[in-house]
Amino acid sequence: MENLIKSWAESAPRLVAVAAGREHADLVIRGGRLVNVQSREVLEWDVAIADGRFAFIGPDASHCIGPDTQVIDTDGRYLIPGLCDGHMHIESGMLTPAEFAAAVIPHGTTTMFTDPHEIANVLGLRGVRMMHDEALMQPINIYTQMPSCAPSAPGLETTGFEISAEDVAEAMAWPGIIGLGEMMNFPGVINGDPQMLAEMAATMNAGKTVGGHYASPDKGLPFSAYVAGGAADDHEGTAEADALARVRNGMKSMMRLGSAWYDVESQITAVTKKGLDPRNFILCTDDCHSGTLVNDGHMNRVVRHAIDCGCEPLIALQMATINTATHFGLERELGSIAPGRRADVILTSDLRTLPIEQVIARGQTVAENGKITVDCPHYDWPADARQTVRMGKTLAEADFGITAPEGANSVTAKVIGVVENQAPTQALLAELPVVDGLVEGQDDTYQIALVERHRATGHVTNGFVSGFGYTGQMAIASTVAHDSHHMIVVGTDRALMAKAANRLGEVGGGVTVWKDGAELALVELPIAGLMSDRPAAEVAAKADQMVAAMAACGCTLNNAYMQHSLLALVVIPALRISDLGLVDVTKFEITDLFGEE
Amino acid sequence: MENLIKSWAESAPRLVAVAAGREHADLVIRGGRLVNVQSREVLEWDVAIADGRFAFIGPDASHCIGPDTQVIDTDGRYLIPGLCDGHMHIESGMLTPAEFAAAVIPHGTTTMFTDPHEIANVLGLRGVRMMHDEALMQPINIYTQMPSCAPSAPGLETTGFEISAEDVAEAMAWPGIIGLGEMMNFPGVINGDPQMLAEMAATMNAGKTVGGHYASPDKGLPFSAYVAGGAADDHEGTAEADALARVRNGMKSMMRLGSAWYDVESQITAVTKKGLDPRNFILCTDDCHSGTLVNDGHMNRVVRHAIDCGCEPLIALQMATINTATHFGLERELGSIAPGRRADVILTSDLRTLPIEQVIARGQTVAENGKITVDCPHYDWPADARQTVRMGKTLAEADFGITAPEGANSVTAKVIGVVENQAPTQALLAELPVVDGLVEGQDDTYQIALVERHRATGHVTNGFVSGFGYTGQMAIASTVAHDSHHMIVVGTDRALMAKAANRLGEVGGGVTVWKDGAELALVELPIAGLMSDRPAAEVAAKADQMVAAMAACGCTLNNAYMQHSLLALVVIPALRISDLGLVDVTKFEITDLFGEE
Repeated sequence: MENLIKSWAESAPRLVAVAAGREHADLVIRGGRLVNVQSREVLEWDVAIADGRFAFIGPDASHCIGPDTQVIDTDGRYLIPGLCDGHMHIESGMLTPAEFAAAVIPHGTTTMFTDPHEIANVLGLRGVRMMHDEALMQPINIYTQMPSCAPSAPGLETTGFEISAEDVAEAMAWPGIIGLGEMMNFPGVINGDPQMLAEMAATMNAGKTVGGHYASPDKGLPFSAYVAGGAADDHEGTAEADALARVRNGMKSMMRLGSAWYDVESQITAVTKKGLDPRNFILCTDDCHSGTLVNDGHMNRVVRHAIDCGCEPLIALQMATINTATHFGLERELGSIAPGRRADVILTSDLRTLPIEQVIARGQTVAENGKITVDCPHYDWPADARQTVRMGKTLAEADFGITAPEGANSVTAKVIGVVENQAPTQALLAELPVVDGLVEGQDDTYQIALVERHRATGHVTNGFVSGFGYTGQMAIASTVAHDSHHMIVVGTDRALMAKAANRLGEVGGGVTVWKDGAELALVELPIAGLMSDRPAAEVAAKADQMVAAMAACGCTLNNAYMQHSLLALVVIPALRISDLGLVDVTKFEITDLFGEE
Repeated sequence: MENLIKSWAESAPRLVAVAAGREHADLVIRGGRLVNVQSREVLEWDVAIADGRFAFIGPDASHCIGPDTQVIDTDGRYLIPGLCDGHMHIESGMLTPAEFAAAVIPHGTTTMFTDPHEIANVLGLRGVRMMHDEALMQPINIYTQMPSCAPSAPGLETTGFEISAEDVAEAMAWPGIIGLGEMMNFPGVINGDPQMLAEMAATMNAGKTVGGHYASPDKGLPFSAYVAGGAADDHEGTAEADALARVRNGMKSMMRLGSAWYDVESQITAVTKKGLDPRNFILCTDDCHSGTLVNDGHMNRVVRHAIDCGCEPLIALQMATINTATHFGLERELGSIAPGRRADVILTSDLRTLPIEQVIARGQTVAENGKITVDCPHYDWPADARQTVRMGKTLAEADFGITAPEGANSVTAKVIGVVENQAPTQALLAELPVVDGLVEGQDDTYQIALVERHRATGHVTNGFVSGFGYTGQMAIASTVAHDSHHMIVVGTDRALMAKAANRLGEVGGGVTVWKDGAELALVELPIAGLMSDRPAAEVAAKADQMVAAMAACGCTLNNAYMQHSLLALVVIPALRISDLGLVDVTKFEITDLFGEE
């Protein structure tokens, strides 16, 4: 089922014969302006392709043309290497690898380094393998970074499965594994946590790349200790000083422009202003929603943005091609238009606006003028990957009741305070009324529940949240609930919360929004409760309906769904919820719901 | 016996602890100006070293200093990474790896990529393993490139042993093998020779680097075909256009300054004038005589020269550090002063003149002010490696007699014409007298003999050579006789030729010069007939005596010994000698000694 390409070594006899003029190429692209990211020049050179690889580049490829050779005349357009995404999570698009690939191919992305961290939390190593296997079926190059941290916060949450150092060692032998996914447990590394170091050691011993994730502005000793542990790159930088610190310490600075990440403009000045050697800078997306892919683009959007931020086009292109390939030990395999490399090439008529007019991957045209022209085959996802929402029982209104201390008329409760456009939450306190022995939300404070969905325990953790602006009778539930991906339900009405939760149990996961007793929107994500195997446009349309439904429930917050899905992310301060209880992420401990001033 | 350094992964717990300030470093270098080849900047940063690796770099390493930490105060000197030689042959120094290392360490070379091509011709895979094993015993990093072409010219010479594709595949699993040595059989690659492609495939399948050698000015289709075969670098370029062609085609341009190679000045303009991205340019020496190592330097000489040629010092340093490391997949292991990498660092007070004041390798001071301060251990070379001059019999004057055709008074003979300062020879014709049935040299034409010395056949191939200027009664013999390393004897007197040849048989190889019945000079090279295990200064002194002795015999030629040792190099035109006869290297065939106009 793998979409194989013969190795350079295997194809070398043919490549040599084509270059020498003894055999004919499969495809010749002529009359173009070749963007040579090796020399950082534009050359008026032809290109000849055989066996899916570049066989010859030079001023004239006429000698490679035979009766069966396809010839593309470019009319002076630019040939740029297919674009590489240095680090990203496919699940963020709510799409399977196949549908994600189908969405990004027309934008010129031909290589992705993907960390299936989300499915690892739901289905463990087996889930990673499924993603890996579907990735290898695609007509473009999708490498897998073995997830490193499931659970993200051991002791503070229960994942569907855990990833062990042995799992990491085992995965290093899979054909599509390129390294270790972002090592998010940076406090663990800094403190010498044996499991984290063992995972990195297994990766380094396999000669592969350890992905980094140092999400702190502190560039003092903790940062230095993290670097000494072996992470080779980091995409969590947000300021110029972050980029400088990473590159000076021998890491690659990965600069991201995702749907909600804007870290290129603030960091690329390390090159454009400070004049650092650009070779250690890499562009990536990290997380893109389906709507971004449908409406705005993918790596073409990132490169264009880098250019708009003042980066020379050829340098920006290097940051999305050869720099990325070199980092992952693939410089001889892809990332440039040079003999032997995979023939991934884009035709574009402008190096600044970067219209993606034709995309060729492994010598095959995969998209033209924004339309995909190939199949992206689907993996046969097994039943257990499609039935991951195991709640153990049908939930009822009573499951969401929060019993007040005996005899109390009101209580002081801890409330998760959502802050617009920020990942951290606030730890608030609210005086809440007690009605019939149950604590009730009021004003902009309503209930949040974490519904256990991996082991069918039927357990519900209840708490309070504020900041979305919800009014009236509503509920919203989602099985995308970083990072352990239980189910997060938020609502003003316990009966509706139960309905929303049960609805996701019924469809196998996704997002559902309810108002006044009826379902306003449903995004079905049947695969692991995280992904749809429907096309991106369809998923994006459903997601738009969901956002509209949230607004109809009174939500005024920008990017509200992301905030919702991060309410269980127990690695980012200050207050979160997990299957084990309310979590104080400043102290990394479970905390009582009822607090004191 | 290997001089091991723990892997980064193995040392990570300690490196993290030192960086975090929980443990103390072995060595701290403070008050220096750190040349950061990652960012291409000079930073006023300290460095802390533990387990032979950089644990911390930053403005202040005080927290890494404990009671047992050695501290070096640099007084504002520069810290540059240890220098890397991207491609070279240790045998060219007539020294064993240990003595070569001892000679170059004071010059700041801490990493070498060595191709033991010469010993491969004499002792085959077993000889390569001996070089590889001695290399791994040294206190610096000596990687081995598996020789690719023994014999260099199949069918035109008989080597002591041959290297097969199976040998290459076997060697790829050895710990010190970094890739394939220069693929010199470029016509073979261009024509799709299965053995050459199989050797390159074995290397690429092992994920290692194929060294290139494209020794032709033709940058047309043959060059393109060679590139398509998989060679990843090339050090045979001599002109700017060569460098441009290599880098544009995705190869690394290795620019060499050896004892007799001057290819930096003519090529570095590709960077300094044409503005190509410098990341794909690498400095190397290829071949250095012991005299160069003793008197002039090694990679420090090359970097200094590159700077003198107009290259910015930081870029020149990158070409001898991080560029090299990256090329061989070792960027995370060495080639920069960055956490986790091997602590190879040089203290110097000037970035242009580059005085090598202190050399630290793997955290240990290995040289100070030009003096080595460590042992370079010797491999226990076995008897068969020390007794490789197997002539089968004591040679006599008669073995060098060239019988004229029956009844001839004179003959027209083909003569190898040596050209000063050029590797190619001329194919000359000379009318030579016949005395007592034997053809005699006259004027500047004298006899040359190729004495078979690998299989004790007792065979001698006789011919004529001119151009050295020899007069009187003399003979010179050498077991350094590229590439098959039989014995080349040149002389005006057959009895002396026999004495010279027998002398080398007696001492196990080397070079000997005889005049008027007595030996004027002897360079003993007992190991494989190629190398001495005595210190470089001693070998250089002996080599100086040899050059003086050649002059005493009337030799007027610049670099005459190199010309002598290349007379059997049957891959470079026009006329050469081998154990199989006189070789026409324009037609790649054995040719008769007696020719016609």
